[in-house]
Amino acid sequence: MKLLRDRILKDGKCYPGGILKVDKFINHQMDPNLMKACAVELIRRFASTEVNKILTIEASGIAPAIMMGFLLDLPVVFAKKKKPSTMDDMLSTRVFSFTKQREYHVVISKEYLTPKDKVIFIDDFLAYGNAAKGIIDLCHQSGAEIVGMGFIIEKAFQRGREVIEKQGIRVESLAIVDSLDNCQIKLRNE
Amino acid sequence: MKLLRDRILKDGKCYPGGILKVDKFINHQMDPNLMKACAVELIRRFASTEVNKILTIEASGIAPAIMMGFLLDLPVVFAKKKKPSTMDDMLSTRVFSFTKQREYHVVISKEYLTPKDKVIFIDDFLAYGNAAKGIIDLCHQSGAEIVGMGFIIEKAFQRGREVIEKQGIRVESLAIVDSLDNCQIKLRNE
Repeated sequence: MKLLRDRILKDGKCYPGGILKVDKFINHQMDPNLMKACAVELIRRFASTEVNKILTIEASGIAPAIMMGFLLDLPVVFAKKKKPSTMDDMLSTRVFSFTKQREYHVVISKEYLTPKDKVIFIDDFLAYGNAAKGIIDLCHQSGAEIVGMGFIIEKAFQRGREVIEKQGIRVESLAIVDSLDNCQIKLRNE
Repeated sequence: MKLLRDRILKDGKCYPGGILKVDKFINHQMDPNLMKACAVELIRRFASTEVNKILTIEASGIAPAIMMGFLLDLPVVFAKKKKPSTMDDMLSTRVFSFTKQREYHVVISKEYLTPKDKVIFIDDFLAYGNAAKGIIDLCHQSGAEIVGMGFIIEKAFQRGREVIEKQGIRVESLAIVDSLDNCQIKLRNE
């Protein structure tokens, strides 16, 4: 996706430890037109699938997910990163955040993820695949089917794709970063 | 806004302590068409203002804010609820959450909130106005101008509006809850 690749090279910033900061257009300040363009491209890639719900995780997944849900006229559910005081009947799993070096809980109400659901999971980044693994666990617990997982940016060198594909789940990423060595962003040509 | 009022009465749930749960269409599962309709109505209400940025706070404010940013072709910045490890130069304030009975930090990078900015702040709920107060503080720190604050649902009996209007800031709410006494949702007729 050229628009996205160009933007990453223009506005993305590298930090030591394989961190790519895209705070200017995805993670803090968001470019709504780019989010919509990402949603369109994800819809195109998953065009042949049958889906009744978009699933994401707070906070940076919400923007592309809501755009996708809007364009497809589907509800969007966002998994929460801790137990809210008013959520009774929920599915819960633990996710290890490599960036933050700590574990957190991810929860979804049983009401909004059921055996009837065929979902596409959307997130901003695919890194080690830990959040995705948590989502897969929640979907297994609920009986929902995961049709595929779509990411705006995949850091291929952190190998999260293998974690997901090993479970037989299709992965689509709109930009693939092959390396951030020496704080240089190397994007895969596609 | 009739569409929203009808939806609150149909799918909103009351909990003791003045809690209104709208997890089915705003706070956990989101209805993208409703979020877009809310954005359209907020744009209509703030039509006469000059704005260059939409501001919100993670996580439930993101959906209506990104829709508004998309329709107006403006960037959207979401304030974060704690210090991310990769954010250096940031503005910070403390907010007391009545629902959770604890204080949390809200941060925005200085890069994305500057004296040049004229912002509309968007959030799902206006309750006691504590999050709004935090946002006002961050805008004061940054020198940005707050053109107005728009909320999907206002719980009028918790009087957050007074907190904001006392600072000379315009408030628009798409649905106003006058009371949740005896777990009955009483919406204001408009």
